[in-house]
Amino acid sequence: MTMNMVDIIRKKRDGYVLSREEFAVWVQGAVKGEVPDYQSSAMLMACFLRGLNEDETFDLTMEMLHSGDVFDWSDLEGTVVDKHSTGGVGDKTTLILAPILAAGGLKVAKLSGRGLGHTGGTLDKLESIAGLSVDIPEAKFRAQVRDIGIAVGGQTAELAPADKIFYSLRDVTATVDSIPLIAASIMSKKLAIGADALVLDVKYGSGGFMPTAADARRLAEAMIDIAKKAGHKATALITPMNQPLGMAVGNALEIAEAIDVLENGTGARDLVTVVLSLAAELFYNGGKAESREAGLELAKQLLESGVARDKFYEMVKAQGGNLDFSRLPKAPLVVPVTTPKAGFIAGMDALAVGRTALELGAGRRVKTDVIDPAAGLVLYKKCGDYVDKDEIIATIHCRDARQAAAAAVMLSGVIRIEGEAPEAEAMVADIVE
Amino acid sequence: MTMNMVDIIRKKRDGYVLSREEFAVWVQGAVKGEVPDYQSSAMLMACFLRGLNEDETFDLTMEMLHSGDVFDWSDLEGTVVDKHSTGGVGDKTTLILAPILAAGGLKVAKLSGRGLGHTGGTLDKLESIAGLSVDIPEAKFRAQVRDIGIAVGGQTAELAPADKIFYSLRDVTATVDSIPLIAASIMSKKLAIGADALVLDVKYGSGGFMPTAADARRLAEAMIDIAKKAGHKATALITPMNQPLGMAVGNALEIAEAIDVLENGTGARDLVTVVLSLAAELFYNGGKAESREAGLELAKQLLESGVARDKFYEMVKAQGGNLDFSRLPKAPLVVPVTTPKAGFIAGMDALAVGRTALELGAGRRVKTDVIDPAAGLVLYKKCGDYVDKDEIIATIHCRDARQAAAAAVMLSGVIRIEGEAPEAEAMVADIVE
Repeated sequence: MTMNMVDIIRKKRDGYVLSREEFAVWVQGAVKGEVPDYQSSAMLMACFLRGLNEDETFDLTMEMLHSGDVFDWSDLEGTVVDKHSTGGVGDKTTLILAPILAAGGLKVAKLSGRGLGHTGGTLDKLESIAGLSVDIPEAKFRAQVRDIGIAVGGQTAELAPADKIFYSLRDVTATVDSIPLIAASIMSKKLAIGADALVLDVKYGSGGFMPTAADARRLAEAMIDIAKKAGHKATALITPMNQPLGMAVGNALEIAEAIDVLENGTGARDLVTVVLSLAAELFYNGGKAESREAGLELAKQLLESGVARDKFYEMVKAQGGNLDFSRLPKAPLVVPVTTPKAGFIAGMDALAVGRTALELGAGRRVKTDVIDPAAGLVLYKKCGDYVDKDEIIATIHCRDARQAAAAAVMLSGVIRIEGEAPEAEAMVADIVE
Repeated sequence: MTMNMVDIIRKKRDGYVLSREEFAVWVQGAVKGEVPDYQSSAMLMACFLRGLNEDETFDLTMEMLHSGDVFDWSDLEGTVVDKHSTGGVGDKTTLILAPILAAGGLKVAKLSGRGLGHTGGTLDKLESIAGLSVDIPEAKFRAQVRDIGIAVGGQTAELAPADKIFYSLRDVTATVDSIPLIAASIMSKKLAIGADALVLDVKYGSGGFMPTAADARRLAEAMIDIAKKAGHKATALITPMNQPLGMAVGNALEIAEAIDVLENGTGARDLVTVVLSLAAELFYNGGKAESREAGLELAKQLLESGVARDKFYEMVKAQGGNLDFSRLPKAPLVVPVTTPKAGFIAGMDALAVGRTALELGAGRRVKTDVIDPAAGLVLYKKCGDYVDKDEIIATIHCRDARQAAAAAVMLSGVIRIEGEAPEAEAMVADIVE
């Protein structure tokens, strides 16, 4: 095996196209421990610098996908749908999107992990609800999807273990930001979940995964190409992440905002636009709407009518959660941040806001960090809004005054106020299909 | 350290020039075990694909050099000289060259390793001589160099341990054939030996380290550049290795050929030319001759007069060897190989001849292989020579008839006989200084 692997590394090093069989030797060897880390990391650097074409990216993804468990939903009546976001600050879309989709008759089997980040992930956010469990045995998870059309749980199966190996190496060998490697990493896990239709939310900007819309589009194209080659319906939205999405950043705070949107049928324009646009894609691709526009209309009706809210309540109950949301964790200190001058908000760097939330204890720097569910911040204004001098622009939610003071300074430095309103940003920059 | 290393890998990955300090973090980290193999291998691939400029190659070499012991000969009167060959088939030049140099008043402190190869190295060859020891304690080694001007021994000090780490990784990650990495590997070890003047024999062709003379020249230039930047006098000869050097391939057989040359003052034209040309470089650079031509003349006189032979005897005695060379190991079977037709020898692929010797047990495939000192083959003709049909062109020296038959078939396939004499090959294709 080792001998063979050297030849495969050499071939990619010299810029040749690798075959499916060659990717199989690498991926299966890595999972079995026969290809050592130092060979995988040399190979990853060769892939990074020489690139992978569409077929190679697909072949690598398929081998990574089949390195572990693959779900089969064929026993389930209905269309199983899935959404993936490349991640952002204040991104609580799943919490609103999933109930809308289930309310519209799609099957939402959402499996999430607990990664590092400025706030926790969907699982951490949901756990802010008293009693709610995301650790659901597979049989119960399947039954819940079948019965009420929606379940959100932690990964129990071993999905794409090759990705785990490669990702941990890429992180320490400067081979993360390669579009083929990112696409293979994301899609190997997504395809393992086996949804019939998939929508990707690829974010760009300071708090997004890719720096520019053009980069995000390239990544989206690579991922959609893989999904199509694998026989799945998939589209991707390219959405900005220059300011946080919606108003709240933090686990319980984001749950509260999501519930507000579900209960009121509306909310922050950027958040609602992204949620409805993602829903439109899946209603269209999942066969519930004749067109994207009809899908958008359906999503809007389900949200505004309260049907989606009821579906959310149903899910919370099914997973043991308490519907008395006044019991969501609350921070002992809630400190206002005021504006130094009047004007239009020209920018509030999403990444910097995310770092402030992380400082407050809302996220994980390393896997062992314990999240403070109550910590975070709530914005009262968004880019383009006018503010007076000394107006409260945000509140900081935390445990002690020192944290609050430091966060207030960080946040003040982040929010730019100018004399003229900035140009409004389209919430869906592009659709890749 | 790990964090820093990722930034350094990223910088080289993106094609930037690394500083001496950055190479220090890598090399020292690797030796201390703080930079894991998977980071070094990603870095090696980035260096392979992005290249290293002359300054970077020098800085990497210096850091590798200083990762271990460095010899100091300043207590020794006289000029310490050293020679390095990139290796070839039938290359017994050191055995003849070193006595010539010592006979001419230079100090030859030759430290060798025991690598893999078609035959053993200089140490293995010398050990064919009954009683001769190459395991000499450092104090005794230094005294021998001081007293008789020549000692050949195994490495006891830890020279360039970083090279050991990197080389073993390069071997299994397809990052061997990079000129800057090869140059840094060779020169870090050579400069650790600390000779005042150095000559490099860079071989090209089927049995050589580099495929073409142009490649060999590029490698030689990289190495000479390092030596000069480090303040050492160094030149390199570019020599062909398309057929074996001299007549014998095998450990005791090569010792016998070397002794023949020393005792007769002459021998196979290609071997003698290379030996005298290498000697000329060191006599010139070591201050014993006014010019290269005068150096060549001096070397020739020392060889033809028997002074070099006497110096060899002196060295053998000093290291405990028996001067009765009739006691050299002899193979039980000596089988002739005859020509299938008359004509001129147009080629005898050095690599294939080397593999034949390896099959006979003359070399090591893996470190634990035990060498048969008597095994090998002796050629009776060289490229350009005319042969009759059924003339004995070589003898195979081995332990059993099956080995002999297989080797005879291999060898017959390797020797090309044609109607016209091939163009004669210059034994020194180029000098790099």
